Amino acid sequence: MTDICLVIGAGAGIGGHVAKRFAREGYHAALCRRSDQDGLDNMVAEIEQAGGTASGHLLNAVDDGAIEKLIDDIEADIGPINVVVYNLGAQIGNRSVADTPLKTFELGWRMGTFAVFRVAQKLFPLMEQRGGGALLVTSATSAMRGNAGQSSHAAAMGGRRMLCQALNAEFAPKNIHIAHILIDSAVNAPDTLGKLLGQERFEKLLEAKAQGKDEIMEPSAIADTYFHIAHQHRSAWTFELDMRAFTDTAWWNHPLDL
Amino acid sequence: MTDICLVIGAGAGIGGHVAKRFAREGYHAALCRRSDQDGLDNMVAEIEQAGGTASGHLLNAVDDGAIEKLIDDIEADIGPINVVVYNLGAQIGNRSVADTPLKTFELGWRMGTFAVFRVAQKLFPLMEQRGGGALLVTSATSAMRGNAGQSSHAAAMGGRRMLCQALNAEFAPKNIHIAHILIDSAVNAPDTLGKLLGQERFEKLLEAKAQGKDEIMEPSAIADTYFHIAHQHRSAWTFELDMRAFTDTAWWNHPLDL
Amino acid sequence: MTDICLVIGAGAGIGGHVAKRFAREGYHAALCRRSDQDGLDNMVAEIEQAGGTASGHLLNAVDDGAIEKLIDDIEADIGPINVVVYNLGAQIGNRSVADTPLKTFELGWRMGTFAVFRVAQKLFPLMEQRGGGALLVTSATSAMRGNAGQSSHAAAMGGRRMLCQALNAEFAPKNIHIAHILIDSAVNAPDTLGKLLGQERFEKLLEAKAQGKDEIMEPSAIADTYFHIAHQHRSAWTFELDMRAFTDTAWWNHPLDL
Amino acid sequence: MTDICLVIGAGAGIGGHVAKRFAREGYHAALCRRSDQDGLDNMVAEIEQAGGTASGHLLNAVDDGAIEKLIDDIEADIGPINVVVYNLGAQIGNRSVADTPLKTFELGWRMGTFAVFRVAQKLFPLMEQRGGGALLVTSATSAMRGNAGQSSHAAAMGGRRMLCQALNAEFAPKNIHIAHILIDSAVNAPDTLGKLLGQERFEKLLEAKAQGKDEIMEPSAIADTYFHIAHQHRSAWTFELDMRAFTDTAWWNHPLDL
Repeated sequence: MTDICLVIGAGAGIGGHVAKRFAREGYHAALCRRSDQDGLDNMVAEIEQAGGTASGHLLNAVDDGAIEKLIDDIEADIGPINVVVYNLGAQIGNRSVADTPLKTFELGWRMGTFAVFRVAQKLFPLMEQRGGGALLVTSATSAMRGNAGQSSHAAAMGGRRMLCQALNAEFAPKNIHIAHILIDSAVNAPDTLGKLLGQERFEKLLEAKAQGKDEIMEPSAIADTYFHIAHQHRSAWTFELDMRAFTDTAWWNHPLDL
Repeated sequence: MTDICLVIGAGAGIGGHVAKRFAREGYHAALCRRSDQDGLDNMVAEIEQAGGTASGHLLNAVDDGAIEKLIDDIEADIGPINVVVYNLGAQIGNRSVADTPLKTFELGWRMGTFAVFRVAQKLFPLMEQRGGGALLVTSATSAMRGNAGQSSHAAAMGGRRMLCQALNAEFAPKNIHIAHILIDSAVNAPDTLGKLLGQERFEKLLEAKAQGKDEIMEPSAIADTYFHIAHQHRSAWTFELDMRAFTDTAWWNHPLDL
Repeated sequence: MTDICLVIGAGAGIGGHVAKRFAREGYHAALCRRSDQDGLDNMVAEIEQAGGTASGHLLNAVDDGAIEKLIDDIEADIGPINVVVYNLGAQIGNRSVADTPLKTFELGWRMGTFAVFRVAQKLFPLMEQRGGGALLVTSATSAMRGNAGQSSHAAAMGGRRMLCQALNAEFAPKNIHIAHILIDSAVNAPDTLGKLLGQERFEKLLEAKAQGKDEIMEPSAIADTYFHIAHQHRSAWTFELDMRAFTDTAWWNHPLDL
Repeated sequence: MTDICLVIGAGAGIGGHVAKRFAREGYHAALCRRSDQDGLDNMVAEIEQAGGTASGHLLNAVDDGAIEKLIDDIEADIGPINVVVYNLGAQIGNRSVADTPLKTFELGWRMGTFAVFRVAQKLFPLMEQRGGGALLVTSATSAMRGNAGQSSHAAAMGGRRMLCQALNAEFAPKNIHIAHILIDSAVNAPDTLGKLLGQERFEKLLEAKAQGKDEIMEPSAIADTYFHIAHQHRSAWTFELDMRAFTDTAWWNHPLDL
């Protein structure tokens, strides 16, 4: 039976490239995103043209029961899920506390923290029954420190990180590998960074950064590491790692303010 | 005008003792708890008998608008709030993921993370207008690491800690002092630790620990440090500190497992 | 008998103000610095004029046996030491790896890490015999993260922080309180910050910062917290806390680099 | 020209397996250890029989100039070093402060911290001239927290971690990849864990753990991740990751002490 990799948040950045990477290695890639059926169809077609198999699924991860139904459907129609990549963020740009509606703050939590718990609660018992599995969670610097303007995002990501640790402590001994992957610099992904910065600023960044300099994170390179982590021997599992472009400053560094 | 210290979560443990400490120094202590009007009345009476002033307020912090209304009421009826002590936890004991209903997980977030944001969003603009203020947040080890069985609590506390950092980054320069106080061992508080452990086990712990040995945290001692932190000179503010009984192992230590 | 507070690194900044604070509360302040007998004499005189008692001791902390002899002498001549404040840093300014001689790197370790171990090894057995004591260690942001140009300083401070944790784990249950105090922004101290920046730049900083704005850390304010921490009830000890001016950015924060 | 991977600390555990892994992929493996010329010769022979190339070098890393001479010799005789794996630890077992001679504490620093600085100071300018390189540092839990009995080891490893961060901040933009790899559980390595535990206890652990259960870290599995990290695309470099056997408790977790 084909192994299945479920990618929640399969856009043009990390999610899509991780899906392609797993598909290239023989996995069926189950791709989910909230909207853009055409985008999904294109990605499925691209994977199939490269000799892989994939399926596309529209999913609004914050809807009650939606994640749970998706997992039921895939398990029934395609087969058992071996690896889940949770790749939805909760970044809303820099917003002061006054400028962050309660509904927005709550939505950040629903996307950033709660949905991860729901995936685990639904899927881990199945994985445990089958002897194991893996959950790779894309994370952000806001999981490590809360900056000004990031109250919603930082609360969601901080909660996610501690949740992942608790999941790891409970489920690693049951052979379910949880990895919390800290993406610490800008990723070449038009539908997230592009939106955040605006088209013009994003293109300028791409131009300035990409002149042979690898200063913007390539999602295909990130995907190589996701694949490696998901296939570590279980005597040597990684729970957490950071990743950034070689020219970027790590989140813990900044110039001495003298 | 009398300074006001609002204590959200004023039971027999940290909250109550912090309230008494601030009242002893001349603050009006506005005490909030979810239930037990008698308990509130007794605490108010105790403070008044000691020469202080206090008021009791029933508050369900997770109800929509309840925190906001409480703050409006106190500001209108008693006066401007100078210091808030957020002392509600979200500990539900050790619960496996399977045994944690979604509603429970959500409630943990509403108590542990969201309510802190709501306090800040409501009160900080008033404090800013008046030139400053302070928010002291009682926190728990689960803000630092997620143990097995603590997925709900750890997610709530991890979110809270990152939120506090974001609040600090935005509001410290506006003269609002935020402190995240990590209570890292058991507190002598019948209505939280007592409930968690059961009466018999709690009494045994008290007995075993308390024989002149100070091995269980005294909330009055904790309150001394809360008061000190709230009154640090603003050129030397503390954002985070840990506290534990001298005989207790810090959360980051445990015996080498060889 | 008078309690004794030994301050290793008693210059015009934190060390000197901590000494005065403890002396004001009845401690004999034993002041140590590497050079400047006149400075020592003046500080002793200042404390005595304020009604306190103090003694001055020249000490090169990196000399073999010097710390050990100093402790022997004070214990023999003045009395048992109750509190030690270790206030020597190892900052040498920003230096590239190429520009950091091996001897300099080693000296950083001798001042920053090794001397703390020597103090503990010499004094803790005496404190243990007498039933307890306290060690307060001034620390720096480099204990938490290593910046470019800080390889010597960060190695020394990172080693110091882990050492303090190990000391705390071994000696807190023996009633010796160890506190690691992270000073995270510039302190108004002419003989350290002043030297680092040069007189002109330091004065400009003072001028720019000090116009009623409390933007540079006042060592007397820091000293208040040192005194508080050293006198916490042992059921509620703090091991680590950070301190910074309210307008300063915490080490973990910096502007989102987009 | 053949790429060269220099392994400092190439025993029967992580170091030896990393060397073999790199050799299998076409690197010349330059193996260093303090003693046991026969062991070195055997490892070289094993690599050569598998079709690779290797050389053996006796090195006492704490001797003045020894590391520097080794690098000079290899660069002159074999060729430019592309990757260094620093795999020397400083674990001396659990030792109270009283039972840790100053010479032992200093030796821990010389092995654990100083030698890493010396490697960087000697080799990084050459790597920089040639356009890049990599330094992988094996680290231990003591880099993250100091346990009782670990004052020497924790000071050495804490210093090492901060040093690695400072090296990364200075040299990553110069295309030198530094990775700090936290090995958080016991490794199947007779000459380190075996010595630490004693032969009998080590065999018992092996027996108990190894019954098909992968509960002791396999150094060959660790080596796979070292190789992956050393070859990440530079737009997506990892600085730090943890590794442990799936059944082992992460350093930040331990049972709730109620």
